[in-house]
Amino acid sequence: MNLHRVLIYGMGLMGGSLALSLRKKFPDVLITAVVRSEKSKTTILSKDLANEVYLLSEFMKPDWSNYDLVVFSTPVESILQIIPTLPKSGNTIFMDLGSTKETIVSAVEKYYGKETHHYISTHPMCGSEQVGAEAAIPDLYVDKLCILTSPKSASNASLEWVRVFWEAIGSWTMEMDSKSHDETLANLSHLPHVISTILVNVAGANTTTMREVMGISKPITGGGFRDMSRIAGSNPDMWISIFKENKDFLYQSIDDFIHQLTEFRDLLKPDHPFDEGKIRKLWELALLNKEQIRKTK
Amino acid sequence: MNLHRVLIYGMGLMGGSLALSLRKKFPDVLITAVVRSEKSKTTILSKDLANEVYLLSEFMKPDWSNYDLVVFSTPVESILQIIPTLPKSGNTIFMDLGSTKETIVSAVEKYYGKETHHYISTHPMCGSEQVGAEAAIPDLYVDKLCILTSPKSASNASLEWVRVFWEAIGSWTMEMDSKSHDETLANLSHLPHVISTILVNVAGANTTTMREVMGISKPITGGGFRDMSRIAGSNPDMWISIFKENKDFLYQSIDDFIHQLTEFRDLLKPDHPFDEGKIRKLWELALLNKEQIRKTK
Repeated sequence: MNLHRVLIYGMGLMGGSLALSLRKKFPDVLITAVVRSEKSKTTILSKDLANEVYLLSEFMKPDWSNYDLVVFSTPVESILQIIPTLPKSGNTIFMDLGSTKETIVSAVEKYYGKETHHYISTHPMCGSEQVGAEAAIPDLYVDKLCILTSPKSASNASLEWVRVFWEAIGSWTMEMDSKSHDETLANLSHLPHVISTILVNVAGANTTTMREVMGISKPITGGGFRDMSRIAGSNPDMWISIFKENKDFLYQSIDDFIHQLTEFRDLLKPDHPFDEGKIRKLWELALLNKEQIRKTK
Repeated sequence: MNLHRVLIYGMGLMGGSLALSLRKKFPDVLITAVVRSEKSKTTILSKDLANEVYLLSEFMKPDWSNYDLVVFSTPVESILQIIPTLPKSGNTIFMDLGSTKETIVSAVEKYYGKETHHYISTHPMCGSEQVGAEAAIPDLYVDKLCILTSPKSASNASLEWVRVFWEAIGSWTMEMDSKSHDETLANLSHLPHVISTILVNVAGANTTTMREVMGISKPITGGGFRDMSRIAGSNPDMWISIFKENKDFLYQSIDDFIHQLTEFRDLLKPDHPFDEGKIRKLWELALLNKEQIRKTK
């Protein structure tokens, strides 16, 4: 594939890991990075994540046509600001790594209208608690799923190019339209992060629990709480941005959760008969759903 | 310590692992097991988890005084039935491994009244998705916390004996009264299991999500969903028993969760301003609570 010069616009964990993947799979590629801080610039150069690094302030009127591939690896909000400044001609492939798709794809479709373009939105599913280019690893994308979302008027060739690119990096790919992506991710990713965070805050607000927790130097929790709280409170900037972009689907997803949890709570109502059969059915259903979603059967 | 003959009444994962721990730490101890099925009997003998095994039907009028230590490792409901049949004299130490304490301790206190006794309720915190004696491992209790709950009129000497016993096995110990135990565990253990199960059922009930899930052979989920769903739907018999015994505290804990989650949901209300500051505060609070509960700082 035609890949000589790549621009990675925003280089944190994801952009930095993509740089390392490129170094491994396409060793001749020249990588340019654009970052906000001098500190990132130093990290990137010392880890050889890019051949040249610009601060945002040094990159105000870029000639995008210098690059075969431009990857936006910044929060969605800033991607939305860049989209209306992109060229309407040339062969550069534009791609983002945004965690939500609907607002990006709408912006791309609004900007390009019926004109054929080369902007493909992608979402590599490889979250991590780590942040920043210093945490970049070359295998972040290997054997992970990358969701491809093609806005209207994107050329088929660019979709195909992006698919081949991610598969060369070592990812699996699947296509999803932007609305399905955001609804699915609300349930499979955004809701779990909310739930984990609320869980530790519920425990934290219970005075008996916290008195006992404080009474011993070892954790009182077993593996269940440990797993369920791992992602709690992580990376607020990223999650605030995701929640903002996916407000409507996440609202619905949380509402569904409250509805199901309220039904469960009511099975335990004081002075109500304990309906073991209903709980058993919920547990059996959960095992089935879990197997289907996690593909463990 | 005086420990020659131990009866393990009910030998699944926990009782079986305790037998293996005894073999390691007290190799001269003679272990007797009581189980429900021929299948368990065969497993136990083939793994040398006990020197003799009785079926429940062969153990109707036991002479408890034959044993220095009797460990009840069955569901709480069946422990509740045995308590009123225990002897009121002798030096045998009685102990259970129940996951809830309030109903057991109440039954013990009701039965013994003001008479001094040797029944100490314990809860080793070492849940696992595995079940059955065939999954038993010798290190299940090593470096785990074991909560000790002393009913009224239990002798101080038996509490001390039980503490020394668990520490010899390799566990950490802490004391908790029965109500504090059940309230704390509702928040740190029972609630997380409910939440995990509801989470996969919410995703499973969303048609868009499941259509996408079914559209590819790889899981769409990242590490967040994987961790958050690990305990979903596991071990229904055990959990139904725990929920039944801890109905009131779990109700309250779920209710607290619904309350906090509803407040979060309402931050995302359609057409409402997006209050980033409030979300940030919840995330910061969660990090603090998580550190305190998990003792990671």
